[in-house]
Amino acid sequence: MLIRSLHCSKLQCLSLRGFTCATAQEVLKPGVVLRKARAFTEEDVLQYSKVSFDSNPLHSESAAAKDVGFEGPLVHGMLVASLFPHIISTHFPGAVYVSQNLNFKFPVYIGDQITGEVQATNLRENKNRYLAKFKTRCFKNGELLVIDGEAVALLPTLRIEQEQHEEP
Amino acid sequence: MLIRSLHCSKLQCLSLRGFTCATAQEVLKPGVVLRKARAFTEEDVLQYSKVSFDSNPLHSESAAAKDVGFEGPLVHGMLVASLFPHIISTHFPGAVYVSQNLNFKFPVYIGDQITGEVQATNLRENKNRYLAKFKTRCFKNGELLVIDGEAVALLPTLRIEQEQHEEP
Repeated sequence: MLIRSLHCSKLQCLSLRGFTCATAQEVLKPGVVLRKARAFTEEDVLQYSKVSFDSNPLHSESAAAKDVGFEGPLVHGMLVASLFPHIISTHFPGAVYVSQNLNFKFPVYIGDQITGEVQATNLRENKNRYLAKFKTRCFKNGELLVIDGEAVALLPTLRIEQEQHEEP
Repeated sequence: MLIRSLHCSKLQCLSLRGFTCATAQEVLKPGVVLRKARAFTEEDVLQYSKVSFDSNPLHSESAAAKDVGFEGPLVHGMLVASLFPHIISTHFPGAVYVSQNLNFKFPVYIGDQITGEVQATNLRENKNRYLAKFKTRCFKNGELLVIDGEAVALLPTLRIEQEQHEEP
């Protein structure tokens, strides 16, 4: 289940941690942050395991996760990181992913409140499209940095589209 | 559907492109390559879209994909890249992902024959576990490099486990 976006889901202007958030009809500029919050469920982890064939016991067996020092089954890091292309493609339909670097710094457990954050850092026009570089981060409970990294995507426009609907 | 692994699926020794593949009971050493082949289906893309909430029209609408110059709907890059943790966790259950860098160089279409390849480049013991660095690459039709990158994972052992079964 996708939890209602905490910040900027409707592209309302909010200033958090000193970032500039996008307002409705705004265009992407360096510094603008787009966010999406989600708490991954056991069902999400099961469905991701099925589609990725990733059956690492750390994601399904409490005992295996605790043996390694975790509190319980982990959400797949690549599933948590899927928040980044989700945020980018929601606001820029037709965006083409070019690269993504990911550093998994802390575990994400089922039910953790995760906020994915994508901040534009560099924009360059390229043949009527825009090569955009983003700082990409996920926070647990709005504070703990659990995934850090960068992404580059080719955007069809710099106009930030509003979400059409809330996911279930 | 996961296509039967082309190379090394049973950890038989094969030498391809000059790499050393793992043999049964072998331990991981720099240079060893583990591979897995897969052709992503329309259903895979649909299921991944559902679990990631990534509804970029490039993955579902031929017209949108063709407008950008692609031949048809694309498989999500992050779904293709899930081959890397899949390969690592299949052979090292309990592995913990530390980082992953991904460069998406060419599009992957539904039905393309993709081979994910994970090559150990550096190994370091760390408190009875092993920090392993891998070159991570995906090839289309065994030749075209479609995803390039690196991953770091913490392995519980260097002993390479054989696959217990073929995925459906």
